[in-house]
Amino acid sequence: MEAVMAGQQGMVARNPSVVRAVGDLSSSFKGAASFNAKAFPSGVKVAQAFPRLVTKCTAAPSIAEQKGADSSLANIEADGRVFNFAAGPATLPAKVVKQAQDELFNWRGSGMSVMEMSHRGKEFTAIIQKAEKDFRELLKVPDNYAVLFLQGGASTQFSAIPLNLCGPDDVADYIVTGSWSDKAYKEAKKYCKSNLVWSGKSEKYTRLPSASEYKLTPGAKYVHICANETIQGVEFKDYPKVDGDTVLVADVSSNFCSKPIDVSKFGVIYGGVQKNIGPAGVAIAIVRKDLLGKAQAQTPVMLDFKTHADNDSLYNTPPCFTIYVCGLVFEDLLAQGGLEAVEKSNIEKAQILYDAIDSSNGFYKCPVEKSVRSCMNVPFTMGTPELEAAFLKEAAAQGMVQLKGHRSVGGVRASIYNAMPRAGVEKLVALMKSFQEMNS
Amino acid sequence: MEAVMAGQQGMVARNPSVVRAVGDLSSSFKGAASFNAKAFPSGVKVAQAFPRLVTKCTAAPSIAEQKGADSSLANIEADGRVFNFAAGPATLPAKVVKQAQDELFNWRGSGMSVMEMSHRGKEFTAIIQKAEKDFRELLKVPDNYAVLFLQGGASTQFSAIPLNLCGPDDVADYIVTGSWSDKAYKEAKKYCKSNLVWSGKSEKYTRLPSASEYKLTPGAKYVHICANETIQGVEFKDYPKVDGDTVLVADVSSNFCSKPIDVSKFGVIYGGVQKNIGPAGVAIAIVRKDLLGKAQAQTPVMLDFKTHADNDSLYNTPPCFTIYVCGLVFEDLLAQGGLEAVEKSNIEKAQILYDAIDSSNGFYKCPVEKSVRSCMNVPFTMGTPELEAAFLKEAAAQGMVQLKGHRSVGGVRASIYNAMPRAGVEKLVALMKSFQEMNS
Repeated sequence: MEAVMAGQQGMVARNPSVVRAVGDLSSSFKGAASFNAKAFPSGVKVAQAFPRLVTKCTAAPSIAEQKGADSSLANIEADGRVFNFAAGPATLPAKVVKQAQDELFNWRGSGMSVMEMSHRGKEFTAIIQKAEKDFRELLKVPDNYAVLFLQGGASTQFSAIPLNLCGPDDVADYIVTGSWSDKAYKEAKKYCKSNLVWSGKSEKYTRLPSASEYKLTPGAKYVHICANETIQGVEFKDYPKVDGDTVLVADVSSNFCSKPIDVSKFGVIYGGVQKNIGPAGVAIAIVRKDLLGKAQAQTPVMLDFKTHADNDSLYNTPPCFTIYVCGLVFEDLLAQGGLEAVEKSNIEKAQILYDAIDSSNGFYKCPVEKSVRSCMNVPFTMGTPELEAAFLKEAAAQGMVQLKGHRSVGGVRASIYNAMPRAGVEKLVALMKSFQEMNS
Repeated sequence: MEAVMAGQQGMVARNPSVVRAVGDLSSSFKGAASFNAKAFPSGVKVAQAFPRLVTKCTAAPSIAEQKGADSSLANIEADGRVFNFAAGPATLPAKVVKQAQDELFNWRGSGMSVMEMSHRGKEFTAIIQKAEKDFRELLKVPDNYAVLFLQGGASTQFSAIPLNLCGPDDVADYIVTGSWSDKAYKEAKKYCKSNLVWSGKSEKYTRLPSASEYKLTPGAKYVHICANETIQGVEFKDYPKVDGDTVLVADVSSNFCSKPIDVSKFGVIYGGVQKNIGPAGVAIAIVRKDLLGKAQAQTPVMLDFKTHADNDSLYNTPPCFTIYVCGLVFEDLLAQGGLEAVEKSNIEKAQILYDAIDSSNGFYKCPVEKSVRSCMNVPFTMGTPELEAAFLKEAAAQGMVQLKGHRSVGGVRASIYNAMPRAGVEKLVALMKSFQEMNS
């Protein structure tokens, strides 16, 4: 146990006599305005060696510099980690989880965990500001949009959207393409004239409408879509066009940061972070600033976007640790080359899986129309529930978990978000082929 | 770096050949219905040795069994940790942070981080159920009360309380004893006849009223108090009596789980967790079940207590990791002997600090009336802002941080929640004495 503990804290920090010596040494650095965090051997964390000094040091080891924790099959297995195909909360980049672990007890020499930091202290201020900056860079968010870190998931935004954008007599158009947009549509009825312009329900949400299939309401305050339906696996590849003062609003919970998006085409983009971006507990909204300040009088103060825009997401205590992990993920996505590179990888992973389905001579079936299949959530079925159960059991035995389809649709669903390594998809496809051979 | 990594993962799990050997061994255990986690030497985590097997093993090392990370002055300093007097988010028990760190990359052999777990999977189901069970045990919550894990902080509950308990024409009485109860009172105006029955504002919120100083409204739906005002440091020692069908509602954000509370005297008890219980991002509400199901029609689905009661706090994705850390804190509080023992320790810590103030011949002054001084937040002032600034600077140099009073009141504030070690309070008092000697 002692060895494990020593490892966690770093040999240096655990030894009181070394700490004292280092403490003396650090005082001789006190005048230094900046500090090169890279000048130390990788086995000794600067923050651990010079705790008091490094509190002022903003140069931290970047995600890109992290050693180990790569996503090859050998490394995943050596780490004792499974391939987690859960629909959300979902797998995170292994290197992000490792960095969070490394920093959890004493964040970069601050003497405390991010979980313990005052949200108004200089350490967390730096964290949230960097997270917003990196997020804006990733999504190329224009200056006339506010970025808000919120709570309560997308489900809270189902209420906040009409409360912020509509009066009670205003019309809002909803295109319902799956379970989540249906929930959003129904919740909006409390606050405005929520209008169903198209629903895929009768076709079990297996396709998206073409523009000729629905008629938007002239003068509607907004048109709402769910960019990717997590449960049914349908994903908008391009977006409805809106006219006049009507704005487009998208719930992007399950494909947030999975590909570039032209923010300027939307009034509001919002989503929970727990699929592609971080642990559950944060929702992010990107809101065009001219839409702020018009919330209905009955809007709870915490659901009014202006409350958060006016306070840089610090009106009350935000979910600090979750925002911090999101920030680590943003660094990782930027280090990968930004969302263009991320999209390329996601398309390739999805293609591998859909190809396996489509080349199985019907052993595996994906019910979704090919042109709108999701790159994130891949549902498929087999001939019988018994076959599916056997498949899920064998997958779990091979360290591939959370592949069961949503309870409302059954079958199998592989969620292959940003952080699912290509090795995980390849391992799944290998199982699909061997399972088919054994059961044909 | 390799040594650090090996420590984090456990020597066994990092070595592929050992993993393979253990994998073979584990298969011979497959029939075992249960598994004794304590049968292994403490240096080898069962979960790390037998990852696949232990997924089914719910016996985990308890907080009480954790080695190291005690709260003595020597250990805190050896760990490079500061004494963090922040008002919230606030210091957590060092052993809880260490356990969270130990388990962060691979929770108890599940092959994933708690941050990555499906909220509907068996692992997280076990986590949230145990957290609720332990919380109920700690606070002796009667069966006719629901325990809800919510989001959005107490500020969201400022809206939810009237929305759930009142119609628009109902009266709710508010006793305003500081900044937070004032915010709750003002937010409630949107949803009911929010009635100010007493305010301490003209006396700068330095005392609480006696029952003879206010008149409650007959037939009011509820009387709202803030049990402990974080900013001003006034704390109810006993509670207002309510008549008839009126219920008492308390925001306990800053003294939650700091002492026993007779839940049966309240209709709703609620609070954010980020002071005594866990990282920011969760609010907990204890709601008498007969009050559920009466929310106003305009209530956002996520603010309706019934939504969460009907779904065991899993209506949508909860902040899983934050709930998990709260659960570790509950285990720790139970291991300490429950809230009676915790209260005794808190009273002692507060007494040490207030004694130092009161015996300083006026060098330090606490503005709060003695009988209602908070055991959690201790504000005090000195003769001049310059003295206070010098004190804060010296405290920080000695590793005592976040002592600055809230921006709205100035001075110094020491928040000494459950997890602030007695050693931290003693160190602060030692500084107060030496600082006074040097500046008198």
